[in-house]
Amino acid sequence: MKALVYGGPESRSWRDVPDPAVKDPEDAIVRVDAVTICGTDLHILRGDVPEVEHGRVLGHEAVGTVLDVGSNVRTVEPGQRVLVSCISSCGRCAPCREGRQGQCLGGGGWVLGHLIDGTQAEMVRVPFADHSLHAVPENVSSEDAAMLADILPTAYEVGVLAGAVSPGDTVVIVGAGPIGLAAITTARLYSPSRIVVVDPAASRREQALAAGADRALSPEEDVPAAVEALTGGRGADVAIEAVGIPSTFELCTELVRPGGHVANVGVHGAPATLHLERLWIRDVTITTGLVDTRTTPLLMRLLSEGKISVEGLCTHRFGLHEMQDAYDAFSRPDESGSLKVVLFGDAT
Amino acid sequence: MKALVYGGPESRSWRDVPDPAVKDPEDAIVRVDAVTICGTDLHILRGDVPEVEHGRVLGHEAVGTVLDVGSNVRTVEPGQRVLVSCISSCGRCAPCREGRQGQCLGGGGWVLGHLIDGTQAEMVRVPFADHSLHAVPENVSSEDAAMLADILPTAYEVGVLAGAVSPGDTVVIVGAGPIGLAAITTARLYSPSRIVVVDPAASRREQALAAGADRALSPEEDVPAAVEALTGGRGADVAIEAVGIPSTFELCTELVRPGGHVANVGVHGAPATLHLERLWIRDVTITTGLVDTRTTPLLMRLLSEGKISVEGLCTHRFGLHEMQDAYDAFSRPDESGSLKVVLFGDAT
Repeated sequence: MKALVYGGPESRSWRDVPDPAVKDPEDAIVRVDAVTICGTDLHILRGDVPEVEHGRVLGHEAVGTVLDVGSNVRTVEPGQRVLVSCISSCGRCAPCREGRQGQCLGGGGWVLGHLIDGTQAEMVRVPFADHSLHAVPENVSSEDAAMLADILPTAYEVGVLAGAVSPGDTVVIVGAGPIGLAAITTARLYSPSRIVVVDPAASRREQALAAGADRALSPEEDVPAAVEALTGGRGADVAIEAVGIPSTFELCTELVRPGGHVANVGVHGAPATLHLERLWIRDVTITTGLVDTRTTPLLMRLLSEGKISVEGLCTHRFGLHEMQDAYDAFSRPDESGSLKVVLFGDAT
Repeated sequence: MKALVYGGPESRSWRDVPDPAVKDPEDAIVRVDAVTICGTDLHILRGDVPEVEHGRVLGHEAVGTVLDVGSNVRTVEPGQRVLVSCISSCGRCAPCREGRQGQCLGGGGWVLGHLIDGTQAEMVRVPFADHSLHAVPENVSSEDAAMLADILPTAYEVGVLAGAVSPGDTVVIVGAGPIGLAAITTARLYSPSRIVVVDPAASRREQALAAGADRALSPEEDVPAAVEALTGGRGADVAIEAVGIPSTFELCTELVRPGGHVANVGVHGAPATLHLERLWIRDVTITTGLVDTRTTPLLMRLLSEGKISVEGLCTHRFGLHEMQDAYDAFSRPDESGSLKVVLFGDAT
């Protein structure tokens, strides 16, 4: 089959690799019908994730059709349309039993396109299929379902839930890329009074307003003063970091009110400065996290029921064999205006 | 009356000041029978708390006898023995109603010995007496009760409760001064599997073991390796920072397991480095906070019932008029071996 293969920093190739096969009784082999690219894949290609070996097939988000399953798989069967989640879960270890599948100690966690071959291919082997795949309801398109492989649960669990977004809150989301937009959608489930988004790109600020943000600010404005004015001087109840650089994290800790939450969602490659000399007295809670995907079944139901929307998240569509073009569009959002890109297999 | 007066950085004098009097119908005037000195007072004397005006009477922890009350005070009466809490509370604002009295917006919070005259004096005016004073049960000595003015509720609320100490946890407490020791005592209420203390002073490590710690480590040892060995490689469930310098905070973020809590209790004067490049994926929760004293009534009951002990916290006793000697002993713990010092008024 063809797959997108990591060849070391700055090197990716779309080339022939062996077809995957069931290796463990809990495996499933899934034909990839719709697959996306994640910002984390770009991090890998920059060499930021050194544990990814050369020759690894990238990708950890897809929707596909089950082709084959191991003998111990009970809830998934060939022919079924499934979501391949970014998190695999052994289901047995203590973290999995506590709903912390992202920290799985039994061979799951974020492994696809990281420690084992991933989804940017014609087929993918998914371990622990009963725990790692999710059924897709008939009325949810593969493109929409693919948004639930990573960005929706990440924004919801690591941003909205960890940040404890509550009715009446002022929620500031720093970064209006796919994760930031997904945070808007899922924050609205908790009826905040206002959602304020901060992003340097005018197109992304517009997208944020369309997705339900009440205000969209450029970081060139005086953001702390604007948030103070909107909140009667209190500051943000919740600040969600959805970029992954020190300055945006530090902005969040500046915007949050006493007693408020900073929820870090961004993938960081460098330390930030934590101004404890100002924060020690302010009853602030700061959280970090990898998505667990424990809420993926809930989000799938909400999507099926029309209670959340992923409209506008996918901006560019390609055939699976246009993988390199898709990477080019996704990695240059300033030129292409891309948010999420989705690639479709020939069978769809 | 005599009082300890702040005269600017490095300047303190024990001298005559006007007697306090009821200024507001909710005030109480309290004769000071037992008073302590806090590490925060030393911060003030170093000039670290610039909002403290020259001429301010310091001190925010005392036990005393009510001499006079304003016309609107209902639950406190002259002759009553009371704890003067480090936190005053208006009782009416949103933070007070939420149990966040430390963030009071109505004129309370940490004001004694900070924004208004404090307790290191023969008498003190306490605002919002119904909310800011606590009755002391007959079987609790004034010396013991004084430990509940600040250190016990601070260690309990900002350390143990914010850190979510739970049965079976490995709790690491960095710093075995009065706050660290109070954290040991109050952490034990939640039946952790083990409490590990880190402190450079051998005498404080001994004191920590006497207070119920299971292990006491010097920071010169390989603390991360020791905690790893104790936890089967997992790391600390909760790390409580009870010092207030960047390196001890950073150690806590290094010791905490994925999914664990870092509870910062220390008063910081400088920023710390937050290693988000390592922490972003680890589901870590970091909290800061000022004590609210919402648990002071509970802690007073537990002390009265013998469910917690403050034994060993007070190491040095003085007469009230030996204030300068007490400061000398408290500010040089390496020489004096002091933890908390208590000064007693002539009437006791």
